[in-house]
Order: sequence, then structure tokens, then C-alpha cells
Amino acid sequence: MRRSLSILCAVAVAASGLSSAAHADDKDVIKYRQHIMTALNEQTAALGLILSGGIPDDNFAAHLNAIALTASTALKAFEPKVPGGESRPEVWKDWADFTARMNDFAQKTAQAAKDANAGKKDEVFTTLIDALDCKGCHDVYRDESKK
Amino acid sequence: MRRSLSILCAVAVAASGLSSAAHADDKDVIKYRQHIMTALNEQTAALGLILSGGIPDDNFAAHLNAIALTASTALKAFEPKVPGGESRPEVWKDWADFTARMNDFAQKTAQAAKDANAGKKDEVFTTLIDALDCKGCHDVYRDESKK
Repeated sequence: MRRSLSILCAVAVAASGLSSAAHADDKDVIKYRQHIMTALNEQTAALGLILSGGIPDDNFAAHLNAIALTASTALKAFEPKVPGGESRPEVWKDWADFTARMNDFAQKTAQAAKDANAGKKDEVFTTLIDALDCKGCHDVYRDESKK
Repeated sequence: MRRSLSILCAVAVAASGLSSAAHADDKDVIKYRQHIMTALNEQTAALGLILSGGIPDDNFAAHLNAIALTASTALKAFEPKVPGGESRPEVWKDWADFTARMNDFAQKTAQAAKDANAGKKDEVFTTLIDALDCKGCHDVYRDESKK
């Protein structure tokens, strides 16, 4: 799917920082998963501001749906065994566990989004506690000192 | 919708940087729109890496759907007239134009997502050129020097 990047906005192209340097593919793999994890973090932070009461809840369900969609893309981004960024080597060493956790994350955020779409507010909060346990995975698979 | 932030992952809470400082509400309003615009940028960058050919296209439609969903939340985030961040005062001075552009952005990304979901690849690329003209708006309404 090679197309001219000129069709995408300058900001995004700059952010992706494409270059023809050596190991461009490995760099792209790392950047790709970083974009996905950062998007997740930004959406969760937006949701957090709503939950804290600082922002009206009009977008509550939309944020959850965006989180669920993004969660569904995350595992694929780690499939190429390319160490680097903030990923610990354990991602690929304990691939079965990592996969199970990522699939669980995708399923639980999908359920929370479904509950939000159906207006089931109480169910959403119960599911969210479980779905957005980012720390549980980050403690094992992420090395923030590499940021 | 005030709930304990303890239910959300530590990363997101840190990113939202909630505090009880003076003007916390205005700060939250600015942070909220920044989270949304950054999420958009990250998703577009991920899409850009697929379009450049560096990453397989498995997540192509999912990224577009996430972009469309996020675009649908963006205008609401600018409704409170709270200058600051990278937003130029023109956002609120020329609100009718800003609104029209944001609604256009939401509609066009929704169409691109719809085309991607239907597997209409050629249509998607045509729509994308138009939908992701981020620069057109940023030149008028964003001041990157305030980053």
C-alpha cells in the first residue's frame, strides 16, 4: 500500500518522520507502535478529564469507542520482533502472555465501548476498572526510562 | 460525571495532570482539546506509515475509523471559549468558519472510514486527500510557536 505521503497532513508526516536512512523499516515498526500507544494514552487522558468532572461527558462514548478501536490495532504493531523504544525484550520472550494480555485489553475495552453505546453507565465503570489496567502490563513490558 | 480517577491507568492520569490549582477548569479545557488533537495526529501518523509502505495495512480501516471518531469529538472540545495552548484567538472570533471546517473534517473522515470499511480503496484515497488537509486549518487557527 505505497502511496504518496503528500496526501496526508504535514503535521502527521513530520510526526512519522519518514526517512530513507538505513534500517528505516525497523525504525518504522518502532514508530508505528509508539503512535498507537500514544494515541491510546491521549484518548484515555481525555476520558480521564471527563471522569474527573472537569469536562462535560458528551464525548464519553466516542472516546471509549476510539480506545477500543485503537486497542484492537495494538497487538499487530508488536508482531514484528523489533526490540527498541520503550518495549522490554520480554514482549517477544513471553509472547504468549503478551498476546493474551493484549487480546484481553482489546476485548474489555470493546465491552466497555458497547456498554457506553447502550447507555449502561454503571456497567461501563465496572468494565473500565478492569479494561484500563495499563499499569499491570506496563510494569512488565514497558521500560519508561527509554522514553 | 465525577468518578475516581483511580480506575484509569496511571499513565493517562499522569498525562492529564489533574490538579486542584487555581483555574483548574480552564487548564482542563485546554488539556482536553490537546489530548484530542494529539490523538488525531498520532493516528494520522500511524496511517502515514502504512501509506508509505513501511507497515502492513491490516489496521488501515481501524485507524481511519479511529480518526473519524476522534474528529467527531473535536469541535465540542473547542466550544468553551478558553484561549490558550496553540489555539489562535481566531478560533472563537471566526467561530462560524471554524465550526464549518471542523464539521467538514468530521464528515469527510467519516466518509473515508466508511469507504475503507467497504473495501473501496480507490475511493478512500480520493476522500483522504480532502479529509486530512490538516494544514488548511492549522495555518489559520493554530500557532505552533506556542507548543
